[in-house]
Amino acid sequence: MLTTRVPATPVHPSTGRLRPLGLAEVRITGGFWARRQQTNAAATLPHIAHWLEREGWIGNYDLAAAGRLPDGRRGREFSDSETYKFLEAVSWELGRRPDPALEATFRRFVSRVEAAQEPDGYLNTAFGRPGQPPRWSDLAWGHELYCLGHLFQAAVARERTAPGADDGLLGIARRAADLICEVFGEDGIQSVCGHAEVEVGLAELSRVTGEQRYLRLAELFIERRGHHVLPEHEWGRAYFQDDLPIREATVQRGHTVRANYLAAGAVDVAVETGDADLLATLRRVWDRTVARRTYLTGGQGSHFQDEAFGEDWELPSDRAYSETCASIASIMFSWRLLLATGGGGYADLIERTLFNVVATAVSHEGDRFFYTNTLHRRAPGEMPDQDAPSPRAFSSLRAPWFEVSCCPPNIARTLASLAGLVATVDDNGLQLQQFAGCSIATSLPDGTPIALDVETAYPENGTVTVRLRESATRPWTLSLRVPSWAHGATLTHRPAGGEAVTIAVVGPTAGVTAAFTEGDVVELELPMAAEFLHPDARVDAIRGCVAVQRGPLVYCAQLPADSAVDLDRLVVSTATPPRYVDGRVVVRAGWLPAADEPWPYTGTAGVPPATGEEFALIPYQDWGQAGLCTMRVWLPEA
Amino acid sequence: MLTTRVPATPVHPSTGRLRPLGLAEVRITGGFWARRQQTNAAATLPHIAHWLEREGWIGNYDLAAAGRLPDGRRGREFSDSETYKFLEAVSWELGRRPDPALEATFRRFVSRVEAAQEPDGYLNTAFGRPGQPPRWSDLAWGHELYCLGHLFQAAVARERTAPGADDGLLGIARRAADLICEVFGEDGIQSVCGHAEVEVGLAELSRVTGEQRYLRLAELFIERRGHHVLPEHEWGRAYFQDDLPIREATVQRGHTVRANYLAAGAVDVAVETGDADLLATLRRVWDRTVARRTYLTGGQGSHFQDEAFGEDWELPSDRAYSETCASIASIMFSWRLLLATGGGGYADLIERTLFNVVATAVSHEGDRFFYTNTLHRRAPGEMPDQDAPSPRAFSSLRAPWFEVSCCPPNIARTLASLAGLVATVDDNGLQLQQFAGCSIATSLPDGTPIALDVETAYPENGTVTVRLRESATRPWTLSLRVPSWAHGATLTHRPAGGEAVTIAVVGPTAGVTAAFTEGDVVELELPMAAEFLHPDARVDAIRGCVAVQRGPLVYCAQLPADSAVDLDRLVVSTATPPRYVDGRVVVRAGWLPAADEPWPYTGTAGVPPATGEEFALIPYQDWGQAGLCTMRVWLPEA
Repeated sequence: MLTTRVPATPVHPSTGRLRPLGLAEVRITGGFWARRQQTNAAATLPHIAHWLEREGWIGNYDLAAAGRLPDGRRGREFSDSETYKFLEAVSWELGRRPDPALEATFRRFVSRVEAAQEPDGYLNTAFGRPGQPPRWSDLAWGHELYCLGHLFQAAVARERTAPGADDGLLGIARRAADLICEVFGEDGIQSVCGHAEVEVGLAELSRVTGEQRYLRLAELFIERRGHHVLPEHEWGRAYFQDDLPIREATVQRGHTVRANYLAAGAVDVAVETGDADLLATLRRVWDRTVARRTYLTGGQGSHFQDEAFGEDWELPSDRAYSETCASIASIMFSWRLLLATGGGGYADLIERTLFNVVATAVSHEGDRFFYTNTLHRRAPGEMPDQDAPSPRAFSSLRAPWFEVSCCPPNIARTLASLAGLVATVDDNGLQLQQFAGCSIATSLPDGTPIALDVETAYPENGTVTVRLRESATRPWTLSLRVPSWAHGATLTHRPAGGEAVTIAVVGPTAGVTAAFTEGDVVELELPMAAEFLHPDARVDAIRGCVAVQRGPLVYCAQLPADSAVDLDRLVVSTATPPRYVDGRVVVRAGWLPAADEPWPYTGTAGVPPATGEEFALIPYQDWGQAGLCTMRVWLPEA
Repeated sequence: MLTTRVPATPVHPSTGRLRPLGLAEVRITGGFWARRQQTNAAATLPHIAHWLEREGWIGNYDLAAAGRLPDGRRGREFSDSETYKFLEAVSWELGRRPDPALEATFRRFVSRVEAAQEPDGYLNTAFGRPGQPPRWSDLAWGHELYCLGHLFQAAVARERTAPGADDGLLGIARRAADLICEVFGEDGIQSVCGHAEVEVGLAELSRVTGEQRYLRLAELFIERRGHHVLPEHEWGRAYFQDDLPIREATVQRGHTVRANYLAAGAVDVAVETGDADLLATLRRVWDRTVARRTYLTGGQGSHFQDEAFGEDWELPSDRAYSETCASIASIMFSWRLLLATGGGGYADLIERTLFNVVATAVSHEGDRFFYTNTLHRRAPGEMPDQDAPSPRAFSSLRAPWFEVSCCPPNIARTLASLAGLVATVDDNGLQLQQFAGCSIATSLPDGTPIALDVETAYPENGTVTVRLRESATRPWTLSLRVPSWAHGATLTHRPAGGEAVTIAVVGPTAGVTAAFTEGDVVELELPMAAEFLHPDARVDAIRGCVAVQRGPLVYCAQLPADSAVDLDRLVVSTATPPRYVDGRVVVRAGWLPAADEPWPYTGTAGVPPATGEEFALIPYQDWGQAGLCTMRVWLPEA
């Protein structure tokens, strides 16, 4: 049984408004996310292990141990990180449920990694050997510290789910961390890695080990960046977030994954060092980024060229990059701000991102992935090669693997640790942050025990039923998040054997404070009318369009590749409200004339077509499951 | 005096509907383009020569001649091509007007190039020496043939403007062309250059020298491409136009400059080989590309990542790449189709592109350049370094030079040879294709002499006055293009001493057939009302927006960087027609509220603001002249 004192969760701040519950405290037991977790365990993890072997990325460690590198090394300079993310995912999965075969796989992988570690703790298969670039010789692009950040996160996951295990992973991480404290410490190399990530890894490794040097090094990396410590290059210093110090930032910019990993690490440092100014800056950055640089799906990143945020309001649907990893990194940033501050829309964005990017980016079968998550596919494109890594991030449909395959193991670790995002506690009670069928057993800081079950068919409907399994020794508050899309939510408390009380909910949470008795039921009812959404008038790319959302799910129009009509001629009427029918949303629609002018800019505005037919939208997370197609989320309004 | 038998013009097909007039036949004498040509000669050419020296790109030839390469070689692998484009520009400039100092500069540059040519004709400063990659070892990215294409165009320009000159440039070109005929001929390397350009160069060199092998090699290159002869890579084979054979193309795709140079060369081959099918394919490709993949400015290219065309209707204003060179290449493609076919909107697109991309891409002073030509600048950005090449294609304002500096010499050669785009002849008469103050002296194929002057303040107003300077020996037809934006044009013929006749013009040309007498005047009146334009409903990026055009000029809204209001809050009313006042166009405007929602997608559509004020738009070609600013061409309609 896992300890509950140090919860088995990716983030465990020493202080903050809320304490996260870990995998031993929250068990996802049924419904949407339980199915996704089962698929992750049954299909995604074996799929990743297969491709790591097949592409030779884990084999690189064997070559290193045998002294045979650099000849035969395979994969990009950052391929080590995929092994670490896989190890992290497996650690969470083993924390979720024992699996001797998976445990054995884990230990075999760890021992292959360990065999490649240098005596002084250095660990990277792409640098430092004769014939390879020297260690730390290419901080901007080499990803050495980035890879170690993922190693640290894997070791933290393992230590929190199997404390004191004798597999050696924590030792590997500590030796590497000790080395970089020497090399990059106060008097060391005064620079940073081109790709932030080591900061979150170091902060959490410090929390797990109590080693303050690791936190201090994270702090140094956070503070150094932004002072032009990396070389200028074609896409500008913002790409690395090296354009201005983090304390001067007003919005996320540059490479989206880098920006969000960095911000997540900066929250860790701000929390652990009690730096209220830095925390306030990061909250303002989050606010403006969400208000102006985030897609309806929660996705972030508007540029293909540099996988980067665009300017404010620059959110093209057809060129949405919305990298899967950027969304996972955004969840990491949001979750840390939620724990630190207790509120502010963070859990809403996490939900939106989980249902509309993370759940979209992996196929129902668990073995195909989107790297980018467009909101508009104009042309069906070509079927991705089913037996080779996609050479590019963009793919017409989900692909089995990528030459840059950061996203699949990132999804796997997120799904395996998902229970860690479900609930938090503070002195006053428990907060349900995400809705999933689950069983929770924990205690408040003063020892008050809490046990409850959550039942819900969410997101199919909006009823969330909480059954208390333990009588309370004192009154406490059960809070449930009320998503901002839910208008007219109600909360009902049915005390065991007592009179039910229903209240209308105002605000972002609904709560009942009571000395709960075993058998008490608290039920949140979130109305789930499908709704047309209109964009801020400054989002040029989708002016004059509407999208449909129902509950947390964004919907989209999809047509098969062989369709006789062209999806880009579809228009919808908002005069008739969208209607939910069996998992789909029906809207009134019409079609623009097919004729082309020789020149597309003319002195007369087109006449909108009649919208006499019905058109059924599907959940965005399901798009592309049925084969090559065109798709769009934002639909021109007639 | 230049010969008129082989006109001094960049393109001289052996057959086709129209014969182009050369620089000896058309002299631009006044008005807009005369001023631009003067600046090109006085400022741009010396500026380019300075930077070629300063950056060492011409110095590379000296190092090569001294046997000192590869050490010290500077610039990218294609930097040789900038020297050739400069030599081409100078050739046209010397054809336009004698200039002994410029002639001396030209000869010095040529002799430095010649000294670097290998005994077998090979010429490239980046390949083939010990310590450099072997010749032809990187066809996809090496640009060796691309550079030679520009060399050939330079030699052609020189031979057509100074036939038989003893500077040696034609000999250099012939030796290089002879070499590649051996290396890449029927039994040679069965591949192509990653960047098309050698095809147009070879075709024209064949026309100048009569050497059929050059034409045949151009044909081989055209036919080979598209059969996956270049390696697959991250952006797909369309980047190189190697995705499908040119005969199967339906639209331009991939890298925009590559695509347009290739298409231009393909027209040359189709014309010289009498290949009507290929010509028809290229016309269809042009039609769809103009209807669906071209900006209002005439610019092409929607992607930053791969400098490429987007899908149909994918034309974002804020991420418009619209590379200057792509527009010049588009003019090359259009001009060749015009000569081959006699009509079809080609001259309209050339005009649009000249006034709104070429004239925009170079500053009024002639020494600062745009590489990309956005239609929407959201943030003012930073002033480009005035004393160093811009490290990236994008710059907030025009920059003095670029690390990839293809555009400045491309503008220079286009402006210096601009008279070659003004007029054509056929058996029946003369066609005025572009409107510029000029003096024309030529003869029809049967020897009928023609001499006339064109006077116009175009594009400030739409009156084009043609005065005949020579009496005709037989009736012939003077045709004037009527741009598609001109509604209600009239044509007046005022015979010397006779009665004036005015006709309303219907269709794309206006013509008078007469045995003209010296002193006859033909006057075209193009109404130049400022007009709101609406995009095709499928161009998502500008839905709900209008732009303003007056005559050939596109207008834009611009605000200085320190403006108190935000340009992205501007909306305009189309209820009041735009009004032209002293070079500006005044529209009725209003401002969206400044307040942000925490989440930009809401259940209620915003209320459009009142449009009570006047806002003055400026010609797009002038944007950014006054310093850092925000700018947009497409304006949301209230």
